[in-house]
Amino acid sequence: MKIHKTSIIENGAKLGSNVSIGPYSHIGKNVILGDNVVIQGYCEIGINSSKDNKKKIIIGHNSLIRSKSIFYAGSTFGPKLVTGHRVTVREGVKAGKNLQIGTLTDIQGDCKIGDYVRLHSNIFISKLTKIGNFVWIFPHVVLTNDPTPPSSKLKGVTIEDYVAIAAGSLILPGVILREGTLVGAKSKVRKNTKAHTLVSGNPAVEKYPTSKVKLKYGSKKSAYPWTRHFHRGYPAEIIREWKRKLKN
Amino acid sequence: MKIHKTSIIENGAKLGSNVSIGPYSHIGKNVILGDNVVIQGYCEIGINSSKDNKKKIIIGHNSLIRSKSIFYAGSTFGPKLVTGHRVTVREGVKAGKNLQIGTLTDIQGDCKIGDYVRLHSNIFISKLTKIGNFVWIFPHVVLTNDPTPPSSKLKGVTIEDYVAIAAGSLILPGVILREGTLVGAKSKVRKNTKAHTLVSGNPAVEKYPTSKVKLKYGSKKSAYPWTRHFHRGYPAEIIREWKRKLKN
Amino acid sequence: MKIHKTSIIENGAKLGSNVSIGPYSHIGKNVILGDNVVIQGYCEIGINSSKDNKKKIIIGHNSLIRSKSIFYAGSTFGPKLVTGHRVTVREGVKAGKNLQIGTLTDIQGDCKIGDYVRLHSNIFISKLTKIGNFVWIFPHVVLTNDPTPPSSKLKGVTIEDYVAIAAGSLILPGVILREGTLVGAKSKVRKNTKAHTLVSGNPAVEKYPTSKVKLKYGSKKSAYPWTRHFHRGYPAEIIREWKRKLKN
Repeated sequence: MKIHKTSIIENGAKLGSNVSIGPYSHIGKNVILGDNVVIQGYCEIGINSSKDNKKKIIIGHNSLIRSKSIFYAGSTFGPKLVTGHRVTVREGVKAGKNLQIGTLTDIQGDCKIGDYVRLHSNIFISKLTKIGNFVWIFPHVVLTNDPTPPSSKLKGVTIEDYVAIAAGSLILPGVILREGTLVGAKSKVRKNTKAHTLVSGNPAVEKYPTSKVKLKYGSKKSAYPWTRHFHRGYPAEIIREWKRKLKN
Repeated sequence: MKIHKTSIIENGAKLGSNVSIGPYSHIGKNVILGDNVVIQGYCEIGINSSKDNKKKIIIGHNSLIRSKSIFYAGSTFGPKLVTGHRVTVREGVKAGKNLQIGTLTDIQGDCKIGDYVRLHSNIFISKLTKIGNFVWIFPHVVLTNDPTPPSSKLKGVTIEDYVAIAAGSLILPGVILREGTLVGAKSKVRKNTKAHTLVSGNPAVEKYPTSKVKLKYGSKKSAYPWTRHFHRGYPAEIIREWKRKLKN
Repeated sequence: MKIHKTSIIENGAKLGSNVSIGPYSHIGKNVILGDNVVIQGYCEIGINSSKDNKKKIIIGHNSLIRSKSIFYAGSTFGPKLVTGHRVTVREGVKAGKNLQIGTLTDIQGDCKIGDYVRLHSNIFISKLTKIGNFVWIFPHVVLTNDPTPPSSKLKGVTIEDYVAIAAGSLILPGVILREGTLVGAKSKVRKNTKAHTLVSGNPAVEKYPTSKVKLKYGSKKSAYPWTRHFHRGYPAEIIREWKRKLKN
């Protein structure tokens, strides 16, 4: 492609070198795309929620946004953002580098996301959520923010570095998941967790340190911290740093 | 915009004054749009489920349908309908005024929805569901209709006025949620509820009157009935009426 | 329609007789569509996950793909595939005849699906899943594959013939649901099931033989095997075969 003839690029949009835009996509006037960014077809990038809105959206270099995704203006993404299809991201997101957002995931905006975060398919992220670095969230997880719905005093979930939330879980408003927490599948978490601890169930209860969770197939070593055995998709310098930490 | 040049408007479609249609949208021949309706891009409005289908779809004045939404013919919506993105609504819906339908929500059709109902993101609403007025349903809620799946004798859920269903809950077929019921997050409701009562858990059990649920942040007053403290988005005459009722 | 003028058909795509392509759809060069296939609008069929990918996608005759669906190259579907809207299907799916895939369902690829399988709305199917014949999966079900997320040794769920999984359930990695299993709504299944047995709850426990589950409305006969009373959408020779089996 490069810029497909059926796409709509509004005057004012700033496209880096070697940018590629798929068929039927719509790039708004307040969009700033870094070098080598690929926007597939049927995307809407830079929607303004009101007419007098002058907010920009910045998407870092070497990013890939898959088809039918929607990004509002008023957010910033570091380099190497990668999305699935049909992602919806409202205004007010500040995200670090190499964020991955899975198909159908819905980010309501006004939230902060660190570096190397992996969000899988069909996750719901409320406003005011704070997500650290190296976090994993699996399909159909819901992060809430309203303790007495409907109300006006909202409090987002806080997720510290290296947390993994297994599929189908829901986290109640204001809960803090401490570093390295593992949330078992289909849990409902009501209370702050301890670092490097497994919580599971509906309601979730504290089970044991994550170091006691073993790999199920092949080696029977500890599955956590997962940085010990899972390196796919991370840069070499990050993996070296993990190895150094694990030795100490 | 107004009518974007890339949109397809079939002969027979009736557009009120000041209607706006976004890029790449497709408006069928049986569509009737009220004054000031905005249809964003990539929408399909008025799909007929069979070729000889002459059913209309009526969308009331001052409605806003966000991009990539799909509405079949054979439904009626009052004024001030507001949707998120990627909403899917099949035929046979009769909805009152100022319905809000969140991103990804999937309404299977043949259902009745009252006035001022708020459906959040990614809700699944089975056929034969009945929803009253001023109801709130939060993300990832599932309303079912088949007690012994798969079978042919279906029975929808009935939701009375002022009910609030928190995120991630599922309601079993035929269940009646009485006026003012609060369903806690990630619950599975198997039995009819009492009015103004909190039910929660999987399976859900009756907890206590909703009046005992306090606001969590700021004031420690009762959070329910929510009409006491939550007024955003409702017209002044409705709020006055709520205040009058709460005094008595 | 037939081939809508706004659609993009790449050179190399093979279209059977009487094929119909809706507005704004994109058919890749490696696509093979059987006779009488209908692709509605805004679809992407035959996406290649890498540029040098020569994989084909074959869609059997008399199939209907509803609007805004996405199918990658590298899969094969038997005749009479029927989808809802916004279906996403990645590469490596081998599916039998008359598969139905509901709106928003997300199939991650590398999986095997038998004949006459019904997948309802918004289901998540991990890689390495195996699904037999005549299986029913209801809305918002999640099939997982990673026992210690994130990790590299994945094991999919196996679902044998005639299994029914009610709405909102999640199946853990590697679990085998034996023939005729019924999974109750909103369950979390951790262990292999016995044939023709109801399991339910979070975590799911074995309840009793499915033959003890009665129809709730009308007749009070056994609801399972469902082949006794539910025939809609199956060919006459299949129904005859079911009747013969049930007599013995």
